[in-house]
Amino acid sequence: MGPVSDTDARWMNAAVALAARGRGRTAPNPNVGCVLVRDGQVVGRGWTQPGGRPHAEAVALAQAGEKSRDATCYVTLEPCAHPSTRGPACADLLVSAGVARVVAAVRDPDPRTDGAGFSRLADAGIEVVSDVGGETARRAMAGWLTRRKRGRPFVTLKLAMSLDGAVAMADGSSQWITGPVARAHAHGERSRHEAILVGRDTWDADHPQLDVRLPGLEARSPARVVLTSRPVEGSVVTIGAPEEIAALPGDYLLVEGGAVTAAAFLRADLVDRLLLYRAPVLVGAGRSLPGFGLTDLAAAHGRWRLDDARQLGVDRMEVYERTRCLPA
Amino acid sequence: MGPVSDTDARWMNAAVALAARGRGRTAPNPNVGCVLVRDGQVVGRGWTQPGGRPHAEAVALAQAGEKSRDATCYVTLEPCAHPSTRGPACADLLVSAGVARVVAAVRDPDPRTDGAGFSRLADAGIEVVSDVGGETARRAMAGWLTRRKRGRPFVTLKLAMSLDGAVAMADGSSQWITGPVARAHAHGERSRHEAILVGRDTWDADHPQLDVRLPGLEARSPARVVLTSRPVEGSVVTIGAPEEIAALPGDYLLVEGGAVTAAAFLRADLVDRLLLYRAPVLVGAGRSLPGFGLTDLAAAHGRWRLDDARQLGVDRMEVYERTRCLPA
Repeated sequence: MGPVSDTDARWMNAAVALAARGRGRTAPNPNVGCVLVRDGQVVGRGWTQPGGRPHAEAVALAQAGEKSRDATCYVTLEPCAHPSTRGPACADLLVSAGVARVVAAVRDPDPRTDGAGFSRLADAGIEVVSDVGGETARRAMAGWLTRRKRGRPFVTLKLAMSLDGAVAMADGSSQWITGPVARAHAHGERSRHEAILVGRDTWDADHPQLDVRLPGLEARSPARVVLTSRPVEGSVVTIGAPEEIAALPGDYLLVEGGAVTAAAFLRADLVDRLLLYRAPVLVGAGRSLPGFGLTDLAAAHGRWRLDDARQLGVDRMEVYERTRCLPA
Repeated sequence: MGPVSDTDARWMNAAVALAARGRGRTAPNPNVGCVLVRDGQVVGRGWTQPGGRPHAEAVALAQAGEKSRDATCYVTLEPCAHPSTRGPACADLLVSAGVARVVAAVRDPDPRTDGAGFSRLADAGIEVVSDVGGETARRAMAGWLTRRKRGRPFVTLKLAMSLDGAVAMADGSSQWITGPVARAHAHGERSRHEAILVGRDTWDADHPQLDVRLPGLEARSPARVVLTSRPVEGSVVTIGAPEEIAALPGDYLLVEGGAVTAAAFLRADLVDRLLLYRAPVLVGAGRSLPGFGLTDLAAAHGRWRLDDARQLGVDRMEVYERTRCLPA
């Protein structure tokens, strides 16, 4: 194992950014990112393609062609060592391409690889560095890790609310609390999830389309899921309880409401990430989050950590992650 | 009137920052800030002293001494033209000191000055520039302007809440939603208010001290006010309704809760500024803001404008001002 330099850390960040492009589209495979660098220049970039193939390394190597010889490969997950009917093992591809060095973030927990990728590279005389940027890379593929370790998708709970925490007026109306910039951002979030869930009341009251209404991303609309114990008309999946999400397709589930459904997921401790959109309005006596079993204020602290925040028009987005949202 | 330069705008910002030091301590006088600059160097700084005297210009001139000759005086309010038993007119002081130029932000609406300060300076051969940084200067003395134009103090409503808008648990407990950094900041805010108000229920339930528990600022504790129609024991002022705040001492009133009192002030349209502290916790079924008369979601928009935001430990502070919080 070679040393970790600032340069390595920076290029790995670039690979992690590419990994994010596959988020919500690569199940059952992880969304991996890869950058090939030679003489300080990027010669190839890749990320796991929709459906899981080709892998990120294969895409980057194809792009680099002859320039991959003597290059350094930055990749967010250990290159796979197992051949598949859908393509050769990435470790073999890297050896054949003649790369000089492989810098990886996370060792592949899949027992078919689990260090075998690193070994094959080292045996071929390639310098291997691992555990570079591991935490950010793990977060970039939180869905795949959660599915592997917890047997369920990674759950994001979205709430659009007023400054005083109202997700709707007392009469249930919620169109619109947030403005067009925040709503467009929420559609972008939808496109990075394989499934999107609402409660039965929301489904019946709002007849939500739950699609991605952004130019060019219409085809990225996730599967629609309704939390209900009764049959629903239309092309939707139903589950009767939050605990049944293991059966849902994909590794990323977006829970969009309403408030009762949000509380049900919190009560079941099945929320990994909070996606909050807050508008600069006061509502008063609005509908807010129902109880989910918290009895002691002290116990509320330390559960959520701010991960991202930005201004979206007049509204503010904040993303919180569970303090221990990723399985070890 | 001379030209407004970037240099003038920058020095005026410095004067506005000094003005803030007097906030909540100068009633019935405005809190003014003043910087004297000669050859690009600050030779004197001043702000209105507690109780309203000496004035900012008098303090700055005393500090500069002989160096005020040929200096430029940046001041957030037109220098006063009327002598007082408590001190000479600032316009006369500036003439005597031999300053070359006076740059002011806001013309004094007090009929005893109202342009007479500028005239006296100009008559003495001093170059006068006005309306530099007027908006920020006006906001720095919002209390004085609100008292003059609306006959009441400038009202800040403080709310400490969870991500889901709970200001307390369902059983009323609210110690503590926010952490020590946010609570210390809230004590600093108290020190910039002359009066602090809570509702009768909060007074009876929590027996709040409502003082400033910050080292060195203990003497800055504001007058305590309880919103109630019944007598209260202790050294507190009482008012029976939000509309009675005109009778309270000082130009800055801080309303600290609880939620029913907050709603009463919003219903009366007597909140100029929202001071929000939000902790990264979800409570669920907590106490949130009661209704204050809003019936239509569309009508909620456009009333509040983000003025300031910062992270305080794990908590976030946001300050909103009414979109038209200052009288014209």
